[in-house]
Amino acid sequence: MERRALILEAAAREFERVGYAATTIAAVAREAGVPQGTLHFHFPTKVSLALGVIDEQNVRTFDVVSHVDSSPTVALVAASRGIAGMLLTDPVVSAGIRLSLERGEFGAATAAFYEQWIGGISDLFRLSIAAGELRTDLSAEELGATVVPMFTGVQLVSAVRTGRQDLFPAVAAMWRIVIAGIAAPRHRERLLGVVAELFGDQPVGA
Amino acid sequence: MERRALILEAAAREFERVGYAATTIAAVAREAGVPQGTLHFHFPTKVSLALGVIDEQNVRTFDVVSHVDSSPTVALVAASRGIAGMLLTDPVVSAGIRLSLERGEFGAATAAFYEQWIGGISDLFRLSIAAGELRTDLSAEELGATVVPMFTGVQLVSAVRTGRQDLFPAVAAMWRIVIAGIAAPRHRERLLGVVAELFGDQPVGA
Repeated sequence: MERRALILEAAAREFERVGYAATTIAAVAREAGVPQGTLHFHFPTKVSLALGVIDEQNVRTFDVVSHVDSSPTVALVAASRGIAGMLLTDPVVSAGIRLSLERGEFGAATAAFYEQWIGGISDLFRLSIAAGELRTDLSAEELGATVVPMFTGVQLVSAVRTGRQDLFPAVAAMWRIVIAGIAAPRHRERLLGVVAELFGDQPVGA
Repeated sequence: MERRALILEAAAREFERVGYAATTIAAVAREAGVPQGTLHFHFPTKVSLALGVIDEQNVRTFDVVSHVDSSPTVALVAASRGIAGMLLTDPVVSAGIRLSLERGEFGAATAAFYEQWIGGISDLFRLSIAAGELRTDLSAEELGATVVPMFTGVQLVSAVRTGRQDLFPAVAAMWRIVIAGIAAPRHRERLLGVVAELFGDQPVGA
């Protein structure tokens, strides 16, 4: 792994372990196994390190959206499954999403990423509508601008309530409601079947 | 207003204006017009002040849920409209929700409030199911454990994207999807009409 990536992975692990406020540049350098001078060369401040993690998280998660399935709605559900999986296994993704939700100094970066996400997801919803998979009076833009925040909230509350242990059933329950609400009748059962298949078939909540 | 309430209102305004980290006890005392000693008597630390705001926010918002309409689903939609309105006008509510989303030291309080909210909203969904207003294979618990996080995300993203300017249409779009997904067919048009009436009929997003 190149040094910049090594440093971001180490920073993500530290941010997740002790939180942003308690993370030190020295600890990240130690964890990454690089001299502090090298770390300072890539990331002069702790803020730049956090923004680097947020940025890398965004690249990694956005990557799972670009592979369009033969069914655009399945591609949407599969993208959310991919991101949920990364939230459980990739510290850069979990730390990046956690940092970007802790507003304040990262607000500007966060706002730009929401626009990017809502744009990308709206594009997929546009394809879903064009493919005849949906029947709804909401536009593709309205669907993107609503489902992205829904997913944001579902993963956030799953983190707070169960440390993400119920993340898959929680995202699945979101899709069961959304698909029942917007799918064209002749696609509904197939799409609900895809949700059950991708996320397993467990109950949500305690 | 009694002194404790005065202090909480002043603290909420300061937390909203400059953020948690930059808020000082001295500034809150000045804003509330009380001696610092009085403030310390009620709230010995800044953390206790933040927890006080979160607690008071929870009391105020939970209050709007307790008035059950003749239609439990309308009561649910009306409660979300009430909370959205308070987010726009009551600094204790907006500061409390912002603080409770900034995890870390408030995580434990936040987790307990989610349980309370999900419990309360699930109770209303149980009434909706009993009243025959819903047709869904999700249980009342699953609905509560999904719609509360959806609302959390929708109001959060509205705050980040537009400073809550699109909060009403954003919450309305959430309900349009949810109601289309779970309402019994013969109640669907009426409930969608209630959403349009309570939130106005504007498009969401930019």
